Amino acid sequence: MPTSETTGAATLEARLPAGRVLTAQASLAGYLHDEGEWAVYGDPRAVVRPESTQEVAEVVRWCAETGTPLVARGAGTGLSGAANAIEGCVVVSFERMNAVLEVNAAERWARVQPGVVNDDLRAQVAQHGLWYPPDPASSPWSTIGGNVATNAGGMCGVKYGVTRDYVLELEVVTGTGEITRLGTRTAKGVAGYNLVGLIVGSEGTLAVVTEVVVRLRPLPPAPITVAGMFDSLVDAGRAVALVAESGISPSALELVDRHCLKAVDDWKHMGLSTDANAVLIGRTDARGEQGEFEAAELARCFEEAGASVAAVSADEQESEALYAARRLAYPALERLGPVLTEDVCVPRAKVPDVLARIEQIAAAHDVLIANIAHAGDGNLHPLIITEPGDEAAKARAHAAFTEIIDAALAAGGTVSGEHGVGTLKLDGLAKELPPASLALHHAVKHALDPHGILNPGRAIPPLP
Amino acid sequence: MPTSETTGAATLEARLPAGRVLTAQASLAGYLHDEGEWAVYGDPRAVVRPESTQEVAEVVRWCAETGTPLVARGAGTGLSGAANAIEGCVVVSFERMNAVLEVNAAERWARVQPGVVNDDLRAQVAQHGLWYPPDPASSPWSTIGGNVATNAGGMCGVKYGVTRDYVLELEVVTGTGEITRLGTRTAKGVAGYNLVGLIVGSEGTLAVVTEVVVRLRPLPPAPITVAGMFDSLVDAGRAVALVAESGISPSALELVDRHCLKAVDDWKHMGLSTDANAVLIGRTDARGEQGEFEAAELARCFEEAGASVAAVSADEQESEALYAARRLAYPALERLGPVLTEDVCVPRAKVPDVLARIEQIAAAHDVLIANIAHAGDGNLHPLIITEPGDEAAKARAHAAFTEIIDAALAAGGTVSGEHGVGTLKLDGLAKELPPASLALHHAVKHALDPHGILNPGRAIPPLP
Repeated sequence: MPTSETTGAATLEARLPAGRVLTAQASLAGYLHDEGEWAVYGDPRAVVRPESTQEVAEVVRWCAETGTPLVARGAGTGLSGAANAIEGCVVVSFERMNAVLEVNAAERWARVQPGVVNDDLRAQVAQHGLWYPPDPASSPWSTIGGNVATNAGGMCGVKYGVTRDYVLELEVVTGTGEITRLGTRTAKGVAGYNLVGLIVGSEGTLAVVTEVVVRLRPLPPAPITVAGMFDSLVDAGRAVALVAESGISPSALELVDRHCLKAVDDWKHMGLSTDANAVLIGRTDARGEQGEFEAAELARCFEEAGASVAAVSADEQESEALYAARRLAYPALERLGPVLTEDVCVPRAKVPDVLARIEQIAAAHDVLIANIAHAGDGNLHPLIITEPGDEAAKARAHAAFTEIIDAALAAGGTVSGEHGVGTLKLDGLAKELPPASLALHHAVKHALDPHGILNPGRAIPPLP
Repeated sequence: MPTSETTGAATLEARLPAGRVLTAQASLAGYLHDEGEWAVYGDPRAVVRPESTQEVAEVVRWCAETGTPLVARGAGTGLSGAANAIEGCVVVSFERMNAVLEVNAAERWARVQPGVVNDDLRAQVAQHGLWYPPDPASSPWSTIGGNVATNAGGMCGVKYGVTRDYVLELEVVTGTGEITRLGTRTAKGVAGYNLVGLIVGSEGTLAVVTEVVVRLRPLPPAPITVAGMFDSLVDAGRAVALVAESGISPSALELVDRHCLKAVDDWKHMGLSTDANAVLIGRTDARGEQGEFEAAELARCFEEAGASVAAVSADEQESEALYAARRLAYPALERLGPVLTEDVCVPRAKVPDVLARIEQIAAAHDVLIANIAHAGDGNLHPLIITEPGDEAAKARAHAAFTEIIDAALAAGGTVSGEHGVGTLKLDGLAKELPPASLALHHAVKHALDPHGILNPGRAIPPLP
């Protein structure tokens, strides 16, 4: 006798072409969770790999009819558990909808399917001299659909903004299984509500995105890199505040601490110096004199805050090595044990205070906290690392995680700068949102997902 | 005996401090409509001039209890009828909530009340070396609240974006009369849905905005201006397409035709030449070499498209005179008769085609159409001018208005680039939105305004 679960999957299978639906336990294993350490996940009823928007709509309608939760999934590189399977859900994986459908070089946009990998899109548009700026550190793996779901940021956000700033138009399947387009490809547009901006960052809870038109820019000039070596995190934080005051627009301003440099070097043997306790990597991609001026300003700010070395380099290889260290920091640390990733964002002037507070929290809870940060945005990523299997340390890590959130909120910050809420930040968000705002969130959720099937329980905390 | 209307107003009056509520016919006259020519309006039951958010909440609650429509109003410079009184409504005018409450120079934001005039905000933040970019031509009169309601654009939108790009946080009164804050002041944030971006541009139909935190930038350097004189609108349109292809980022790219230059000169006697049929005003505010390069590129594009003169000028007075002509075009034309203002936005490469189509439409309907445009964005403002009192011409103007909308939609454009929908563009928007998208719009409207009191009938067309 088939169980009720398999019966359910069978009626779904009947509505789709062969080969779309996976139900065998072994084939589901790769779809259980994203990279959000310790976020809860359950067993999906099925995984669907649709090949068209019509097929996605068919799945949504089936889920609406049967009251089955639907979890949309890109590459699973998220860090908050938003793409984790829910017990008895259908996971919709966009791995087969991964084409760049059209690049319009004159109007500077690209029309893509959600499963296209961020770096693949970049490579394709670069052939036209164009650039898709949002560059999460996961760009070699993460998909545009996932980037849209989380409103992904990245290194160049400090100058060029985040995913939402680049989404012109969406094709979506609504919570009732209808297909529609939202937004406009023109440079400006105020016709109708900004539903595109609402759906970007909503973690699959308001609609299922099936196509994305992204805005492109001309490729920027090669950057000049300025690296500063600091004795302390707090000094590096002071440099960040000075850069913010200076009025220049660096194209990146990244912080990497000694723990991260060491982890990367132990893994990749890049010959990175681990003498400094914190390194700031500033970049400018302004042209000519202005670029030289901004590089000099970065160096001045670093030195004023106590950097022992502030090296300016237009050498691409040298600069790429440091930058690669920043990109690799997260996977390098993951090799050491479970990493609980924080993602608070605080006012730029508060960066030194909050970094100091994070050091206190690490000491108080006896956990190792490594730090990377999109420092120029005030977007800090304290990485709490524990030994594999050490349950007591895990509990201490959780306590530290909560205290970092409280410290960020006390400094006028937010619980998530770019990783999203998923399930890991639900408690933090409940602290951040006023009750009347939470009520509006639920009203919007119910309006767009009347059957409550779209990634339920994620992105917004429950009503009290 | 008091009428039911005055009884209504009396119970409202009783809930507010003295002097807030106007009901005398004469005192209501200035609050009947905005500058959207021919948009419908009715007689308000009362006008309220609140002095605090609590008072606004009191008005919303009274409206919810009595089922009275509420129309929020800034300076009334809108062009689509969105701030027009609805028969029997309460108009909430923010003229007394017009303070800049706080400027945080280190974090680059300002916290303001909705009634502050755009230019007053600019003047105040300039004292800190800071700049609030969105610059609708109405900036000497229009308010930040109105700019937020319409997601106002302006001259510098082509490089610096529009109002929504600068709103970090809102305090709002919800449709049920609750006060809450939305958004975050940090540089990035993905905690919760993007309700700020949803409410910006929603024309007072989703919430009543009572406070705005806007992002500021450092003051830009003085611009270099490049003016091109063209024999035809279509040639000027070709120059716009060439600039778009060139990859440079002008800080303005404005088109003014002969009709507009003549109207301004007849009014202000600025000595403007009206030899050319169209003038393009390009600007760059890039520093140093890059600025010189961009100015040269603008001149090259203008010449390639057939400009007879392409004059580059760093002289501020000369450049300001042309720029002032652009700003004054609309009020100058209004002196000649009723002006029906179009606001379509089209793909940049389609600007020459659509300008040619507009000339055909003017000829076919025997109406005068003057043209100004934020040409670099593809945002065209054909201005249809008729003789005062000529009803037949009015009918022809309406037909032309509708055909321009159809032409823009056929070119892949949108019915409104920046003026908003109000009531004038409801029919056009009904053509633009797919049915499933319109249904989502109504779901969102009902979710945030369950009593249907917030500027009902504006911004989104009715369900079919």
